Amino acid sequence: MHDPDCIFCKIVRGEIPADVVYEDDDVLAFKDISPQAKIHTLIIPKTHIPTLNALQEEHDALAGKLLRAAAKVAKIHGVEEDGYRTVINTNADAGQVVFHVHVHVMGGQPLRKMG
Amino acid sequence: MHDPDCIFCKIVRGEIPADVVYEDDDVLAFKDISPQAKIHTLIIPKTHIPTLNALQEEHDALAGKLLRAAAKVAKIHGVEEDGYRTVINTNADAGQVVFHVHVHVMGGQPLRKMG
Repeated sequence: MHDPDCIFCKIVRGEIPADVVYEDDDVLAFKDISPQAKIHTLIIPKTHIPTLNALQEEHDALAGKLLRAAAKVAKIHGVEEDGYRTVINTNADAGQVVFHVHVHVMGGQPLRKMG
Repeated sequence: MHDPDCIFCKIVRGEIPADVVYEDDDVLAFKDISPQAKIHTLIIPKTHIPTLNALQEEHDALAGKLLRAAAKVAKIHGVEEDGYRTVINTNADAGQVVFHVHVHVMGGQPLRKMG
């Protein structure tokens, strides 16, 4: 399911370009355009899910693929052993900007503050 | 599967006390003993998985339950609408200390820095 006004759905549909790092049938990973670490890639489900609050049991397999994709993306970036941070922000206090679930994968440097 | 030397496995087995926030057959959530935000709860799978790098396809349903538990924990803490951050740290650069996968759920205040 796509939301016609969602910027990440537009990336999935190829209507907006992105620097793709990894893709399979269910998820798409691309570099964050405003990186907050040396490595900063976003992973999204190809289907539109606005926030973690909207996750249903039917999404469990997809959620698993998202987290496994984080390890794949870390490996592609060569940081799976040195380490990486995986962040999902939900709603305003966490600074969620695009309301399509996305997993930030950050690395390439020590990451110390989580909030 | 438990690791006899893992501190989080010991919490699952009840050998070390924890301030439990949520529990079901597959996951356990308890307050972080060194909170880095007003609300800071950890969610762990009851089975021992050291890092995200060890996730296999067979864990997909469990990973889904972990992420859905994050939303449940946020709701228990009353921050599901104001917002919350979900963080998984893998290996040294991200500051992973306990090598049993854990999801940090942080909220109750604006969270701005992800790294």
